[in-house]
Amino acid sequence: MAEILHDVVGIGNAIVDIIGRCKEDFLVRHGAPKGRMRLVDAETVTTLYEDMGPGMEISGGSVANSMVGVASFGGRAAFIGKVADDEFGKIFAHDIRAAGVTFDTRPSSGGAPTARSLILVTPDGERTMNTFLGVSPELAQGEVDADLISSARIAYLEGYLFDRPEAKAAFRQAADIAYKAGRQVALTLSDPFCVERHRSEFVEFVRSRVDILFANEAEIIALYQTHTFEEAARIARSATKLAVLTRSAKGSVIFHGENATTIAADRIKHVVDTTGAGDLYAAGFLYGLAAGKSIETCGRLGSLASAEIISHIGARPETPLAKLAAARGI
Amino acid sequence: MAEILHDVVGIGNAIVDIIGRCKEDFLVRHGAPKGRMRLVDAETVTTLYEDMGPGMEISGGSVANSMVGVASFGGRAAFIGKVADDEFGKIFAHDIRAAGVTFDTRPSSGGAPTARSLILVTPDGERTMNTFLGVSPELAQGEVDADLISSARIAYLEGYLFDRPEAKAAFRQAADIAYKAGRQVALTLSDPFCVERHRSEFVEFVRSRVDILFANEAEIIALYQTHTFEEAARIARSATKLAVLTRSAKGSVIFHGENATTIAADRIKHVVDTTGAGDLYAAGFLYGLAAGKSIETCGRLGSLASAEIISHIGARPETPLAKLAAARGI
Repeated sequence: MAEILHDVVGIGNAIVDIIGRCKEDFLVRHGAPKGRMRLVDAETVTTLYEDMGPGMEISGGSVANSMVGVASFGGRAAFIGKVADDEFGKIFAHDIRAAGVTFDTRPSSGGAPTARSLILVTPDGERTMNTFLGVSPELAQGEVDADLISSARIAYLEGYLFDRPEAKAAFRQAADIAYKAGRQVALTLSDPFCVERHRSEFVEFVRSRVDILFANEAEIIALYQTHTFEEAARIARSATKLAVLTRSAKGSVIFHGENATTIAADRIKHVVDTTGAGDLYAAGFLYGLAAGKSIETCGRLGSLASAEIISHIGARPETPLAKLAAARGI
Repeated sequence: MAEILHDVVGIGNAIVDIIGRCKEDFLVRHGAPKGRMRLVDAETVTTLYEDMGPGMEISGGSVANSMVGVASFGGRAAFIGKVADDEFGKIFAHDIRAAGVTFDTRPSSGGAPTARSLILVTPDGERTMNTFLGVSPELAQGEVDADLISSARIAYLEGYLFDRPEAKAAFRQAADIAYKAGRQVALTLSDPFCVERHRSEFVEFVRSRVDILFANEAEIIALYQTHTFEEAARIARSATKLAVLTRSAKGSVIFHGENATTIAADRIKHVVDTTGAGDLYAAGFLYGLAAGKSIETCGRLGSLASAEIISHIGARPETPLAKLAAARGI
């Protein structure tokens, strides 16, 4: 069995976020479903960018954000994802490495550009994402580094990867490597629209390969096509060893075997931007799990990281999470 | 005489800021003088970027920030500055136009890249800038649009332009156009190091061409080589019609003819990042002046804009300044 060198290795889209503020009617005018992620082509991303207000560029990508969060807690994190050899690719690679995450996927050149997501934040702090994937899905199978994946306690996979066949193949390969190496496989469902696009495949994948499932209310309801959260939660509970279900301001509930643990959300004064709330909850939870903490502590670390991220713009922590956890005695 | 279409036209470096946090020892290790701007070459900017923590990219440039501030107050602002036809150039052009500023300078292609400034913010909120000018100084004289400059009540020039001969030529040309069109010429001294590099030229330019001079304590002392702020202020007072001197937390003092008006700084709870404090003070002041407000009101608008900008990361306002001014009844 390979040596454990990392707590978590994440596989996901490598994206730079362009974050701007807008009013509700902007979303309506551009047909962007509020609070969701939609995929857009090169032409749409250009039109939308021209019409949106001033932005700020901050590295993003759901699982990439989580890996930065794990590192910010002091965990050993690695990331696999594809960028191009352009300015945005350089920004992404710099930021994730500077955050202390192992990142060795080679940038591609001469093809599609690095992925970007235009993230529009409405006055209520909710984010709506318009993602142009660019080169991101072109993760060749050889780039899913078997040694790296085997070196981590947990492999964390992003549901968004299912949106492109090449990325889905890499996703499945990574899960197989982790499974065969006796590691834990964790999955985030990413987005309810994404779940709807790939529902039956997700159900089967969760059943057969996933040890730890992360989902929010809308995602788990979409996955199991139920009317209520409670019904969906009941199915999730029997389908995986650990189902970690987040409920925004209502906190989270974690099902593990016969037990259910409820964690309150950390209260914050003013929600500035919800981008990355789920990603950072997962970061805290996964960090805690890899460090052998109790389920309750894992959940509290998730809530703490989530509260930090929604109190400012962008999905990368501004305050070291290890410091926040220490201050709270967790 | 040309029609007035703008309140202020600014001429300056077109820069994208890459803002990150660091401890004091990082500045010492890299020989970056705290609180100042230094020019760095392509190699140094690469080394520094590799060594610095995660960043966020936000459009910047001193006078460009001021023009965005004028527009945020509801004023009509224009900007002249050079970017390249690359990702950073696209970001700069998008952000300034999206903020409502007229920006028509053509991007260059095939040469130097768009300027960037690595801005390191220490725990006290002070910013230290490392600027790679790239294509920015290559403002050909033909690009200093005489019609545009003549269309504005005030032409606002950036001292930083003196750092490169081509930019200095454009600067002088812009000042001549404004002067001959009977417009007001405003100058910011930009930075004490910049003043030291071009002291005698600045003294002569202020004496012969400048109607409104903006400087902070360190800059005005460097310009007139005095021991105290009071001595420097006395010389500034006799050299220009309007000397607007900012003193950080001590507020500002404005000398106009026989009169001196003192304005208190707006109190804010926590200084996050001082980047743009002077730029936004100038924005408020120039907006007020073009709108025919009293000197005291101009100063209060400056303080208000300055307080907004230091309460968050980046030198572009996050809250519309017109709204803040209205809420305060200014």
